[in-house]
Amino acid sequence: VQVGLPVGFSAHTARVGLRAPGAGASATNDDLSVVLAPDGTSCAAVFTQSSFAGPSVTLSRDHCRAGGVRAAVIIAGNANVANGPRGLHDAEEVCQLVASRLSVQPSQLLLASTGVIGRPYPMERLRPALATLPRPPEGGFEAGPAEVAAAMMTTDTKPKVASRSLGHAVVVGVAKGVGMVEPNMATMLALVMTDAAVDPAALDGLWRATVEGTFNCLSVDGDTSTSDTAAIFASGLAGPVPLGDLSVAVREVCLDLTLQLARDGEGATKLMSVNVVDAADPAQAKRVAKAIVNSPLVKTAVHGADPNWGRVAMAVGKSTSVGEIDPDRVTIRFGDLEAYPARPGPEGLEELRRLMSADHVDIEVSLGTGEHSATVFGCDLSAEYVRINADYTT
Amino acid sequence: VQVGLPVGFSAHTARVGLRAPGAGASATNDDLSVVLAPDGTSCAAVFTQSSFAGPSVTLSRDHCRAGGVRAAVIIAGNANVANGPRGLHDAEEVCQLVASRLSVQPSQLLLASTGVIGRPYPMERLRPALATLPRPPEGGFEAGPAEVAAAMMTTDTKPKVASRSLGHAVVVGVAKGVGMVEPNMATMLALVMTDAAVDPAALDGLWRATVEGTFNCLSVDGDTSTSDTAAIFASGLAGPVPLGDLSVAVREVCLDLTLQLARDGEGATKLMSVNVVDAADPAQAKRVAKAIVNSPLVKTAVHGADPNWGRVAMAVGKSTSVGEIDPDRVTIRFGDLEAYPARPGPEGLEELRRLMSADHVDIEVSLGTGEHSATVFGCDLSAEYVRINADYTT
Repeated sequence: VQVGLPVGFSAHTARVGLRAPGAGASATNDDLSVVLAPDGTSCAAVFTQSSFAGPSVTLSRDHCRAGGVRAAVIIAGNANVANGPRGLHDAEEVCQLVASRLSVQPSQLLLASTGVIGRPYPMERLRPALATLPRPPEGGFEAGPAEVAAAMMTTDTKPKVASRSLGHAVVVGVAKGVGMVEPNMATMLALVMTDAAVDPAALDGLWRATVEGTFNCLSVDGDTSTSDTAAIFASGLAGPVPLGDLSVAVREVCLDLTLQLARDGEGATKLMSVNVVDAADPAQAKRVAKAIVNSPLVKTAVHGADPNWGRVAMAVGKSTSVGEIDPDRVTIRFGDLEAYPARPGPEGLEELRRLMSADHVDIEVSLGTGEHSATVFGCDLSAEYVRINADYTT
Repeated sequence: VQVGLPVGFSAHTARVGLRAPGAGASATNDDLSVVLAPDGTSCAAVFTQSSFAGPSVTLSRDHCRAGGVRAAVIIAGNANVANGPRGLHDAEEVCQLVASRLSVQPSQLLLASTGVIGRPYPMERLRPALATLPRPPEGGFEAGPAEVAAAMMTTDTKPKVASRSLGHAVVVGVAKGVGMVEPNMATMLALVMTDAAVDPAALDGLWRATVEGTFNCLSVDGDTSTSDTAAIFASGLAGPVPLGDLSVAVREVCLDLTLQLARDGEGATKLMSVNVVDAADPAQAKRVAKAIVNSPLVKTAVHGADPNWGRVAMAVGKSTSVGEIDPDRVTIRFGDLEAYPARPGPEGLEELRRLMSADHVDIEVSLGTGEHSATVFGCDLSAEYVRINADYTT
């Protein structure tokens, strides 16, 4: 069943020709998306922590701070990062052109760009395309979530859409990004739309907490892009819903997208989830979990289904300081099989090898230092990751 | 020319059968080394920061703190990590057996073990081998640095020895370790020996500073082993030398070993050096340099000679917080070619591709925030790294 947009939203996608030839599965996809929400929409957004963020992020951050954002422009194939004053000027022109066609203020736009770093937008192609965008509601704004998700892709091999309904309202999300930075292509990008009515301040709080527990728990390669953007729009047209219910639905949509992103990680053959429990505080739990999920040696062991639990011990050891944990109180499990301190014999290693051959490998570590936990998601490291990122040339 | 040991040192190597079959180039090497220095020797050592360190590290740390250490026992093929009380008991027995043959106290031994994690020493083989060690100076202690370096190897493809002379004295070093943790095999391990006379406190200061600027600037995969150990012995038999000269010679030996380790990194085809200059302080310089040298996307770009300088910008961005640097003041160079902000055109990209095809790729980043710098060393990421670490099973 094709999922539609929530009430009040409309979208348009087009092909401007921004992607490099050979950009993988997305080479012939549309590369420009415009999503419009009605007047009165609440918006919340979080952005990359990179100090090298481009003008798409810096402009959007300013617009969100000022309030009133109700449309998103998503450009795939060119991140417009590290282009100096020209990059900022081009980004401002893009906002002005789109705003004029949508009859909104430029400051009401969220601009997200994903792709090559250090190459200016091809304005000679982008300018006429934007100047002739259809004018909603005259028609031409008929794309659904699947079309937007496809138009956002860079090295993704499939579009990512997730949705949940709650009462009369619906929550629909789209996302892309399978390396934190792909062959010249940057960005984890997610847009969630709902027609539930929610106070902007409440939406902001809900969104930050959700992103922290979902997208921020995803690591493909530990590299942070210069363009990461995750935003939510709430049109309100389906009326109010209990904030707790909305929170659950948004979290489920984002977790669904996060798992889709992990499974489609560059070269990935397996989803890896790492759950750290019995930690002194949430920060300790997340730090250790991220060290495990990002360790190239754990990732290659998972890839090869090598029951090498010593590498998990190594990652726990490197991410905690001497005395912070007691190795004798640590437990390491793969699925429901205890690897440490049990130290499986030959039969146990066979069972471990079997668990690690599945397309979803679960690692659980108990630190024995408290009662907090964190779960993070990632994928294995394959020779295909190296091929994608080394043999593809600029 | 075969390098000999400094005056006063003697060494013995033997094959006990500790390595797993299929342990690569080192499968048939000796796997036990004992190095003895004369009474009155000064020793300084630094150890892994891992909280999961095994008894080799914890015992050696205690012995070094107590003073008087003048012999090293190096076991290759088994790290004796994560083996609980049995592991500690076995390590103590190894020290007692060796000490008894060398006529020293067990607390005068440095014990270093490198190899499989989570598997106890095969004491039934190790015990008789140690109990029948030759008793120096009766003979049988005739190994040179090359033999010791070969007996230390795990997945290393070649032994690593470096030496420098200064006046009547000589500085000789051996090292191993080509992944921070290899297929079940752990450890960067380095032992430097000199016959120069040097005050123990001065040696300690000199050693810590040297390790910080050499071995601690090496990253193969960002993973920290549970067993890293780097130690220096100074027998004093060649008499005193100026501390400044000794410092230069020791640093040169360690830097030489560091570069040998980087070049022999698992699956490595290229040496990568990253120099961060004009940083606000040394910590900022080293943090950014390590982020670059450890980034899988930078490492794969170097492997594929892809002139993708945007990935270096990405790594600078992710390792600094917003506002900490000004992207407009950052400069990125490959060799002597400026990539950012110059943004090379097609000809520049060709030149960049040529520079990146060399077997040594130099990346220099100026942060424009101050006057400090740091240089770190690493290697490219190849499909061979994945093969070594995924397809090798426990």
